[in-house]
Amino acid sequence: MKEISVLAPATVANVVCGFDCLGFALENPCDEMTVRLIDERKVRIKHLDKFDLPTDPEKNIAGVALLAILDSIDETLGFEVEITKNIKPGSGIGSSAASAVGAVVAANKLLNDRFSPLEVAEFAMIGEQLASQGRHADNVAPCLFGGFVLVRSTNPLDIVSLDFPPLFATVIHPQIEIKTSYAREILPKNVPFKDAIRGWSNLGALVAALSKSDYELISRSLEDFIVEPVRKVLIPHFDVLKAASLKAGALGGGISGSGPSVFMLSENLETAQKVENAMREIYAQTKIDFNVYVSEVNAEGVKIIE
Amino acid sequence: MKEISVLAPATVANVVCGFDCLGFALENPCDEMTVRLIDERKVRIKHLDKFDLPTDPEKNIAGVALLAILDSIDETLGFEVEITKNIKPGSGIGSSAASAVGAVVAANKLLNDRFSPLEVAEFAMIGEQLASQGRHADNVAPCLFGGFVLVRSTNPLDIVSLDFPPLFATVIHPQIEIKTSYAREILPKNVPFKDAIRGWSNLGALVAALSKSDYELISRSLEDFIVEPVRKVLIPHFDVLKAASLKAGALGGGISGSGPSVFMLSENLETAQKVENAMREIYAQTKIDFNVYVSEVNAEGVKIIE
Repeated sequence: MKEISVLAPATVANVVCGFDCLGFALENPCDEMTVRLIDERKVRIKHLDKFDLPTDPEKNIAGVALLAILDSIDETLGFEVEITKNIKPGSGIGSSAASAVGAVVAANKLLNDRFSPLEVAEFAMIGEQLASQGRHADNVAPCLFGGFVLVRSTNPLDIVSLDFPPLFATVIHPQIEIKTSYAREILPKNVPFKDAIRGWSNLGALVAALSKSDYELISRSLEDFIVEPVRKVLIPHFDVLKAASLKAGALGGGISGSGPSVFMLSENLETAQKVENAMREIYAQTKIDFNVYVSEVNAEGVKIIE
Repeated sequence: MKEISVLAPATVANVVCGFDCLGFALENPCDEMTVRLIDERKVRIKHLDKFDLPTDPEKNIAGVALLAILDSIDETLGFEVEITKNIKPGSGIGSSAASAVGAVVAANKLLNDRFSPLEVAEFAMIGEQLASQGRHADNVAPCLFGGFVLVRSTNPLDIVSLDFPPLFATVIHPQIEIKTSYAREILPKNVPFKDAIRGWSNLGALVAALSKSDYELISRSLEDFIVEPVRKVLIPHFDVLKAASLKAGALGGGISGSGPSVFMLSENLETAQKVENAMREIYAQTKIDFNVYVSEVNAEGVKIIE
């Protein structure tokens, strides 16, 4: 039986001044998925994890993405999927994007790379839409391509892989629930023009700084005056966490996706570990359960492992 | 007598999606300036052009910039300046920035490079402020440093020189007057958040495209949904001009500064000349006098010539 296994990494979207367009991939955590070709036009899903996710393919992110592939082809074939999710749904580090990308990439490999990378991204976006209720690619694209990815436009899809220097992320996931719909609802409909200008000045500078390996400019550019002020109230101790991370040497960071995870970027692993310690110390004083991940920015993206 | 002569180039600011933060320098036109050290604490200004600009240093852009230098030093010295402006004031291609930068760079050379490049930029911004009534660096910085320059912040001043491939600008200056104050007045106070997101997605992509020499992405990123729609009405035949330029092969472009000049970028000189012809054809049918400049993007900026 033909089968393909993949590791689909967690991703950070809404990278500070790159709200709704900039994301990057992590080395860990990763979802593990095995996809097999079957000889019925069906998608069968089996979860090997503890998250009790729906196995009805129309209600499952990987399932919806695979059904979209089936819709686009004529052959009598289908997919059987085993999923071990290590990225907790709702954590704000691209859990749904990993499900969608992993499934589609494995399926495309089973179909001998029939679809182009942009087509693969489109199928994955259809899957992810089940979770995010919108057409977004800023988790899907870095999960698929790795590194820092800028989504210039989703319609038509226009994805730009950025040059970037070695960077290490520290991500804390406080185990609280933030409804993505509520996090969207509190976003402003309009923003002061001067804040928009500060926003694009910072993102332009960040893209330049990444390509020039200018860590000081990366740090100065990681500013957001629009979304962070309204969303940080959803995350307990955000300001303290950020201040302690910067004090520990982080270049900067902010809310990952729509939260509750918070990420910080550092120039090297040692600093990222100091940031981890600073974060742990703060959350250890609370009653909130949490995980912390330290990971180099993953240049490769989703990986086929067999 | 110690004297220094400089050529200070015209510049394009408000580069489409880089409103208020992105500018680039042209090879021509350039202002010519000669500055001499004198032994009184005075600034004397002589204009060798036809523009009848004020020679009272407190009312003259070069004068104000040089007075700012004098204010910051103790010695009994001053500057005598001869200015031949070739960049028409009010044309929207950085005439005031050229006056300020040229004067300050020459003076700093006479003072044996006493001031750092950022200090030089600060003095020039004080001069330019006389004309623009605001603290801006998106003409001053490219005039001073050449190439494409992104101003991440004016306070504190944070200037980023971008990597960029060969690019050629075609600039048409319709000889009409647009009051900068009016062009500012019609800007929105608030913008839809989704337009702001499109704005920074485009600027991020443009910066990446410039550094990757990706001309197609440069072209796709040269989009502005915020300022161009409200300001283009100030410029006769703007839409026709833009459509004809794109048809002639331009990558894209828009209003230079706050107008009335309009610029287009092309991948090579031949295309930039085709764009010139297309622009000339349109304006030849009007009763409006105009100049057209074709110029490679000037990587060097202000130049000391003796």
